[in-house]
Parts: sequence; structure tokens; C-alpha cells
Amino acid sequence: MTTVDDASRPSRVAGPDEAISAEELQLAARNHGIPLEALRYDVTPAGLHYLLIHYDIPDVDPAAYALSVSGALDRPLRLDLAALRDRPRVTHRVTLECAGNGRALLRPRPVSQPWLVEAVGNAEWTGTPLAPLLREAGLSGDAVDVVFTGADHGVERGVEQDYQRALPVADALREEVLLAYEMNGAPLLPQHGAPLRLIVPGWYGMAHVKWLRDITVTTEPFDGYQNAVAYRLRRDADDPGVPVTRIEPRALVRPPGFPDFMSRTRVLRPGPCTLDGRAWSGHAPVTSVEVTTDGGGTWAPAVLDEPSGGEWAWRRWSVTWTATPGRYVLGARATDASGRTQPVEQPWNRGGFANNLVQRVEVVVPAQ
Amino acid sequence: MTTVDDASRPSRVAGPDEAISAEELQLAARNHGIPLEALRYDVTPAGLHYLLIHYDIPDVDPAAYALSVSGALDRPLRLDLAALRDRPRVTHRVTLECAGNGRALLRPRPVSQPWLVEAVGNAEWTGTPLAPLLREAGLSGDAVDVVFTGADHGVERGVEQDYQRALPVADALREEVLLAYEMNGAPLLPQHGAPLRLIVPGWYGMAHVKWLRDITVTTEPFDGYQNAVAYRLRRDADDPGVPVTRIEPRALVRPPGFPDFMSRTRVLRPGPCTLDGRAWSGHAPVTSVEVTTDGGGTWAPAVLDEPSGGEWAWRRWSVTWTATPGRYVLGARATDASGRTQPVEQPWNRGGFANNLVQRVEVVVPAQ
Repeated sequence: MTTVDDASRPSRVAGPDEAISAEELQLAARNHGIPLEALRYDVTPAGLHYLLIHYDIPDVDPAAYALSVSGALDRPLRLDLAALRDRPRVTHRVTLECAGNGRALLRPRPVSQPWLVEAVGNAEWTGTPLAPLLREAGLSGDAVDVVFTGADHGVERGVEQDYQRALPVADALREEVLLAYEMNGAPLLPQHGAPLRLIVPGWYGMAHVKWLRDITVTTEPFDGYQNAVAYRLRRDADDPGVPVTRIEPRALVRPPGFPDFMSRTRVLRPGPCTLDGRAWSGHAPVTSVEVTTDGGGTWAPAVLDEPSGGEWAWRRWSVTWTATPGRYVLGARATDASGRTQPVEQPWNRGGFANNLVQRVEVVVPAQ
Repeated sequence: MTTVDDASRPSRVAGPDEAISAEELQLAARNHGIPLEALRYDVTPAGLHYLLIHYDIPDVDPAAYALSVSGALDRPLRLDLAALRDRPRVTHRVTLECAGNGRALLRPRPVSQPWLVEAVGNAEWTGTPLAPLLREAGLSGDAVDVVFTGADHGVERGVEQDYQRALPVADALREEVLLAYEMNGAPLLPQHGAPLRLIVPGWYGMAHVKWLRDITVTTEPFDGYQNAVAYRLRRDADDPGVPVTRIEPRALVRPPGFPDFMSRTRVLRPGPCTLDGRAWSGHAPVTSVEVTTDGGGTWAPAVLDEPSGGEWAWRRWSVTWTATPGRYVLGARATDASGRTQPVEQPWNRGGFANNLVQRVEVVVPAQ
């Protein structure tokens, strides 16, 4: 008998010599990263921000839209877009990164969206803070989790579901958590969650529920798929693991010079140049960035620009380098105020989450 | 001695069992297709349109920008954006498709951007027609080609270059060829060629030069890399081949039901449903679309909607299907007024260009 399970298979890790599969390529053709040259923009323009969409982009009619807020609170609410826009309006510049960034570089490789290093973006999100809304609704004293449900529907590892993620109440009540209806000053694009999405500054992308249609407060821990099964750091399939939450520190180099079409190896003319890029962490402010031109053999300190756009946005860093003919491997390593830094040898987990191994940018400086 | 060649290797075809390489994945992470559910939109929203960027997105300052028009004409011109916007303004809705669409499905697989079927979009492009501008400049009677140069710079198969493509004069003078400064009613996004790009309705994407900075009329055929080497239909590396020009007919199915995250196999409830999608051709209007639910074994005619948006835009098609439990492979086949149609067995060429093999959409209809 044909069942939903015929569409879906368990999660797995690629074999030692297994190359990228057709299914992984299919995900890479849909979901895209930031082209690394777009690290030049303080605020990532529409269409260049990374995208990870679990199922399909749903077709939500903004005129018929209403957000439901219910569960363990005194006064359940339904808010249409006009009502949401009438509430206090704030804008936060926030770096979002996919929890699976770097997955395709792990050995062995967890088989899922095959990100290299580019699943990041830094946009301005405008909306209304969540915490006052929950308080006005009379949040119950015994509330435990706040469950956010999107309008996107699909199957994942055999489980049919609407995309749902919960935050512990304390995290949901952080003042910077937003119900966002604009990105970079324009209404949300369909692929970024139109008409409304959650923004949880500092957390990996899976928490920022798109096409948000329902908020339910629970008095028991939420055990839905995306919290209890998918986004966990596990050693193996039997390990219950720990939840994926905040973004580990990472710096990326904006590749200098110009690229070869196929290899993306950079060609850089000899002479002095500025190397720059961006650095971020969801745990604490970035306090230093170091740069290597020899693939991690030696490191030099970079200059961090003043923060622009608040504590949840990436920071530009730069360093002067005099390029002489030869071949180089550039990388950068961020450290944050919590003492976290980027590893040179990557710890591994079965989902390929929260990786922040140092990037490798191959550069050729021709003798001419 | 280190040279530019250290960044670049010759073109090649993958071995019989060679899976997707790290370099192909790297291109797939940058360049993206249209998520197939976005076939629902008549006009593809910003950020969902396919993108193929050979080198880096260049950083062009619109305030300092001027287009140079020179070569075999009486009065060379320099036009800033204000001057271009002061000229007659027209909007065309145009389907753009990458010439390499379908490449990664070919056996053997040409190694380049690994598109499956999704390298397409249908946007509204606003700008000023090229032909009157060339005529006002006093186009020479012995003009042969019109060369369009972008601001993007890179290396490709060992050849350092600005991206350049030429059109034969007769094609450059087609009234629908545009110098476009807006997409979907907004200024061009960086990744779509800001501040100015060429639009050549009916031709594959390589002709629509982005970040256009120079137009030069020549009295000899242009022999630059992208015309003479890259975009040609060749049997093998020694075949001089023929140029890639207009878009072959293609229809895509908007995948029904909902997807499995990893496999993208669709789950569709039993019962009557509408299957729909889009069809286009750069040679002539689409005259019919046929649909299969058994992977090409049998075909049924679809209904074509009235054209919306003129002769260069895709057309919606639809058909009613009563889904009963089982597994299906959906596809659609377009035929145009020139008699061209989509092959069931794909002819092969070494660059993997102009492929229009029928799509395969796997569907599970569960018994419930």
C-alpha cells in the first residue's frame, strides 16, 4: 500500500567516499547562500540573503491573514496585519545563519542541505516586539514553551508536519524577539516568510519561523519534530543530544581579486591590498578577528570596525596584506566576549549543525 | 612561476560514474534556480528568479555610471542613468532561461554549473529600446556585430576577460531589445545587473549582458570567448559548433501536493486536482502542452491560458487529474508554432546547452 513513507527516508551520513548525491544537489539548486562578494554590503540586499526552506514557500494571502495567539494565557488573540502594524514598531539589524552552514565540508558528511560556508545574511527586520504582546494577553505563570507554527507543510524523515519550533518562555520574552513584517524597509518577500515571521536575534535560522500563523503557549515542554528530533547536536542516531540554539562565532573573508568561473579560485595582482570580511557570534559580541594567508599556519590580528547596526549584526574586519607572487589559502577566525572561538579541527555531530570551521579561500597571485 | 592559469582548468566532461564535484556544488551554492512552487506567480518575485553569475557581482556606483556607445557609428555617445531614463520607456515581460538548464541531468555530464530544470524566471523589465539609440548614433552601413561588455571580470578556462557577448546587428536592432534599468517596477538589484543590463527577448540568458558598461559596434565578426568558445553547441572539444541563441521550448510542472524535505518527492492526497505549470519558447509562441503522469508513457492535452504579458512571457497551462493511490512521474511537453517540441530522449552536446528534456516530478498518492 502506498503511504507517505514512500516519499521519505531516515536521516543518514554519507559513506567515506560518497560524493554529493542528486538529492543534495536538488536542495542546493533551491536553497542558496550569499555570494561571498556580497559580504561587501553592510545590509544584505534582497535576493542575496541565504535561504533555507524546508518544504515549499506557501501561498499566504495577506488580506485574509491573521495571527492566532493562544494556549496558556488569559486572553487569546487574533491579529491581522493592520493590527500588528498598529503596535509598537522597531527595527533590528540581525545576522541570520543556517544551523547547517558548513555541513558539506564535514567528513563524514551528514546528508542534508549541502552548505559550504555561505548560509548567512545580515538584514534589517522591522516588526513589533513579541514580549509585550504575550504579557498583554496574560501569559500564564506556569507557561514553559512558546510554540511557533508556520504555514509551510511537508514531510521530513517520515513525519508529516507543519513547520513548528518552540522557544523556552524566557527566550520568547527577550525584548529583541520580533514579529517581523518588513525586511530592509520593504514588505517581506514570499521566500523570507511573508506576511509575518519570527526573528530571534542570536539564534540559528531554524528558530526564526517564517509564514508564522500561530503562537501557542504550553505548560509542558514542546516535543515537536524540529525541536526534539531535527535540530540537536548528537554524536550518533541513538544520542538524544542537546538543542541547537545560538550562533557560534564565525568570520568570513570577502574573497579578494577576481575569480575563475569554475574553481572560484581567486586571482589577485601583486601589491598591497585590503583583506576584509564580516564576523559575528550569537553568544556575545565579537572581540577579535585573526587572519591567515597560509591556511592556518600563522595568524595576524585584524582591525574590527566599530559596530554598525547594533549588537545582533555582523561586524566588518580588515587587514592590510602585501601580496607577492605565489599561492595562498586565506581564512579568518573570530573570537567573542564569551571566549568562544573557531576551531581549526572541527568537532563533528550527526546533523552537521553549528559548524564554524575556518573558511579556506584559495588565491593565486601571478608573477607579473 | 605562478600564473593566472593556476586558477583555471580546461572544460571537461564527467566520467561515467563521476558524481557531482565540490566545484560544481560550490557553483550551485552561489547560483540558484527558481523554487518550482514559484511557478505559481505570473511574474517571478525578486529573489526567486534564477541567477547565473560567471564571476563576481561587481560593485557599480550608479552615480558615477555612464554607458559608452562607440565603434562603427557616426556619433559615439556616453549616457548616464538620467539620460537613459529620459529616453522612451517601455516594459516587456520576458522569460529568461539559462542556456545550461538541464545540464546536470545529461549523461555524460558536462562539468559546469549543475542545473537540473529550474534555471528560469519571468520578470517585467523596464528600460529604453536599443535600436533607436543605435540609429540616432548613426549606425554604420557596414556594421556586423554589436558587442556588449559588462563590468564583471574573471577567468574562464584560462582566459581572463570582462564578460562580453555580441549580437549580430540584425538581432541588436530588433525593436524588443532593451537597455533595462528596472525589474518588476524597482531599480535592478545588484545580482540582476544594476544599474543597467541588456534584455534580448527569446534568447537564452547569456545574451542578456548584466552590469552593461560598453556597447561597441564592429565591422568584423566578434570572436570573444563567450561567443566563439563558450556558448556553442559542439559534439566534442574539436567541433567548432554552432552558436547558442534562442530558447528551445520547455514546459515545467508546478509540483502538486507537498514535498518531502530531502527527496522533494511530492505527497498528494487522492481525488481530483488541477495540475498546472508554465510553458515557453524563444522561437515562436507555444501552441500546445501535453501532460504525462506515467513518466512519458502516455500524454494528455493541457489547456493553455490566454497569453498574459505579451509574446516573450511564459504561458500557464493546466489539466485536471484525478489522483488515485500509487506512485507517479509527472511531466509536461511544450510545442511551439515553429514545430519545435521537447524530446523524450535528449540529444547531447559538450557544453550541456539548450537542453529541454521533459522534467520528472515524482509523486506519491497515499492510500488513505
